[in-house]
Amino acid sequence: MTDLSIDADRLLDRIRALGAIGRNDGRLTRLALSDADKAGRDRLVAWIRQAGLDVVVDRIGNIFGIWTDADNADKAPVLVGSHIDTVIDAGIFDGCYGVLSGLEIVETLREAGFAPARPIAVAAFTNEEGVRYAPDMLGSLVHAGGLPIDDALAIAGTDGTRLGAELERIGYAGHQEPGFLKPHAYVELHIEQGPVLEREGVALGVVENLQGISWQRVIIDGIANHAGTTPMSMRRDAGHAAAKVNVFLRERATASNTPTVATVGSLTLEPNAINVIPARAVFTVDLRDPDEGRLQAEEAALADYLDVIWSEGFSIAVERLARFEPVTFDPRIVAMVERAARDRGIVSKRMTSGAGHDAQMLARIAPAAMIFVPSIGGISHSPREHTADADLVAGANVLLDVVAQLAGEK
Amino acid sequence: MTDLSIDADRLLDRIRALGAIGRNDGRLTRLALSDADKAGRDRLVAWIRQAGLDVVVDRIGNIFGIWTDADNADKAPVLVGSHIDTVIDAGIFDGCYGVLSGLEIVETLREAGFAPARPIAVAAFTNEEGVRYAPDMLGSLVHAGGLPIDDALAIAGTDGTRLGAELERIGYAGHQEPGFLKPHAYVELHIEQGPVLEREGVALGVVENLQGISWQRVIIDGIANHAGTTPMSMRRDAGHAAAKVNVFLRERATASNTPTVATVGSLTLEPNAINVIPARAVFTVDLRDPDEGRLQAEEAALADYLDVIWSEGFSIAVERLARFEPVTFDPRIVAMVERAARDRGIVSKRMTSGAGHDAQMLARIAPAAMIFVPSIGGISHSPREHTADADLVAGANVLLDVVAQLAGEK
Repeated sequence: MTDLSIDADRLLDRIRALGAIGRNDGRLTRLALSDADKAGRDRLVAWIRQAGLDVVVDRIGNIFGIWTDADNADKAPVLVGSHIDTVIDAGIFDGCYGVLSGLEIVETLREAGFAPARPIAVAAFTNEEGVRYAPDMLGSLVHAGGLPIDDALAIAGTDGTRLGAELERIGYAGHQEPGFLKPHAYVELHIEQGPVLEREGVALGVVENLQGISWQRVIIDGIANHAGTTPMSMRRDAGHAAAKVNVFLRERATASNTPTVATVGSLTLEPNAINVIPARAVFTVDLRDPDEGRLQAEEAALADYLDVIWSEGFSIAVERLARFEPVTFDPRIVAMVERAARDRGIVSKRMTSGAGHDAQMLARIAPAAMIFVPSIGGISHSPREHTADADLVAGANVLLDVVAQLAGEK
Repeated sequence: MTDLSIDADRLLDRIRALGAIGRNDGRLTRLALSDADKAGRDRLVAWIRQAGLDVVVDRIGNIFGIWTDADNADKAPVLVGSHIDTVIDAGIFDGCYGVLSGLEIVETLREAGFAPARPIAVAAFTNEEGVRYAPDMLGSLVHAGGLPIDDALAIAGTDGTRLGAELERIGYAGHQEPGFLKPHAYVELHIEQGPVLEREGVALGVVENLQGISWQRVIIDGIANHAGTTPMSMRRDAGHAAAKVNVFLRERATASNTPTVATVGSLTLEPNAINVIPARAVFTVDLRDPDEGRLQAEEAALADYLDVIWSEGFSIAVERLARFEPVTFDPRIVAMVERAARDRGIVSKRMTSGAGHDAQMLARIAPAAMIFVPSIGGISHSPREHTADADLVAGANVLLDVVAQLAGEK
């Protein structure tokens, strides 16, 4: 624990100032590489320069603010960061809190005359949300070597744009090769985006692992027929088959007494008419579990259940949309976070991240961990996303202590 | 039974000719009061005139071809009919078969020198399908006095048009007051639009009643939350609640061992994203039963089940979209249809109409019945809608016999 604390007002003011950029009719939307994202990036870069850090932008548009000096320039830096792109109609904390806290702790340490043995860098990774360009967590994925830069630049957006062309357009196609910065350690501070901390009255989450994610799209084809003239026994109702899958997944996940979560978030019926038995149901299945074996068992159970549906006379197609194995964070940094919280008298609990984060990409190339603060009502990706000021400040102070310690390591 | 039979080629040719009007890229669409509907009406009117009948159009655009003479002009006519408007991407038989068969039997009787004691009239009712203007079965509803003409003319279409203005535009805003023609009896010949006749190898359906219909829209509001971070126990998943309702309705209708049918045909989720627990599900419930008491019991069971969902923490709103009580057709005409089929050696069965038809409106003001012919695969409202030529001809001949007998009644 340092004797320092961050400048709470400066951090909170910046979170609100960044949250004011990209508003339209009161709604906050800064999709990756949009004009609004450019405005947000410009503001962040100005703050980084103002703090006296070097600004480096790589070819995928990741922004790094690097605090280094002659004594430590040859050492691998401690990296903190997150993202500043948002979903549509977003809250102001998701991602931005981590980036601005990273900047805040660097300024606090510099102003206090702290002389770290290693450089400290803060990163804002491109296109974490994945709303405009798939996949999500793109900037950190490229940084970690998980996707060649030229493939990433060629990605087409939902609006038909090319990612590389949009990067050029907004002036954030940098020159550094992605991955140029090999961190000594990576720590990401983030809002929980779930209800557990608030519900349990805990101020800080020590994130020790991150759920594996399995996304699938299921298409069930039955037969469209007249809703009035077709006896129940003669129906091939694709909407009903999809409903059965939803109920099955829910019952299985609820009964399992494990952290497994299963969600049918998106569903469309065809022809979707009041008096026509649905011919087709297209829906997504989101399965998550921190244990790879259990996640595979859930996928197998879904496949078996779809076989039962198939045997009732339906056609079924399944498409894999995304698959990430669970990530285990670095036990040493996790313990460091837990200790830092305890030393500041902050109640914490070890937990799993249910969401994906840039940290899971960075964990491929460096020891990594995450710190969570409570999300009121568990709400995120919404204007109602909120975290109490005291929790935001507490989280940033724990980050400060952990980074100071990591940056002091020879 | 007359000794006459209809001119099969003339009927089949006209069905195909009318089915060629309103095609675009091969798809048949003649929405009510569209340019395509006007073209279909013009063709029908030309055929009616060519057959020597008087053409009368009423203020709601219903077209009547009336065969009357000095001897019977004071008598209430026997009315046959259906509609010629279609759904989007329709088949060629729904409605048109009944109208053109009506014209065909009048021509057959006239050419044979038949001298009926009563006029015989054939009607094409406006906007039976209800795709462009709600409610469906509109022309016959207005004819039967169920909706004031001025209210009907003021109806706004899904495309923002006014029904009255569109009637004027296509030249089918007639002068006769709706309901001017009080039938002695009404008989409607129609494709089954269901699978029962074909499946049971029966050529003709003697329709003795028509299901009551209950249409409701249900809106379930839960809470949107992150699909990864929200434990199963803390979810208010509106999509899952809707799925449970679908499964409940299906299981209840299937287990009931009654003609009850229940369908969730349309469903949308909000925000409908792969990684967000659905906050809102909006879906329709279509319940049908030929028995009013059972239909009410089904509605009550749904309401009770929604109460259970509500008690689990959801908000629920239910909107009634349509409600028709079951219709019992005139037993004397039903028996007449059955006898006519038997006399021609056509295998028939008594059945319930699962779909709504203009006959249910006419049954309010006159003894009425319907005759069904098989729909291959039970398919309707689709280009794959089909009935074998022999079945089409057999149905028209039964109509011929029944109408000849009714028109002979003093």
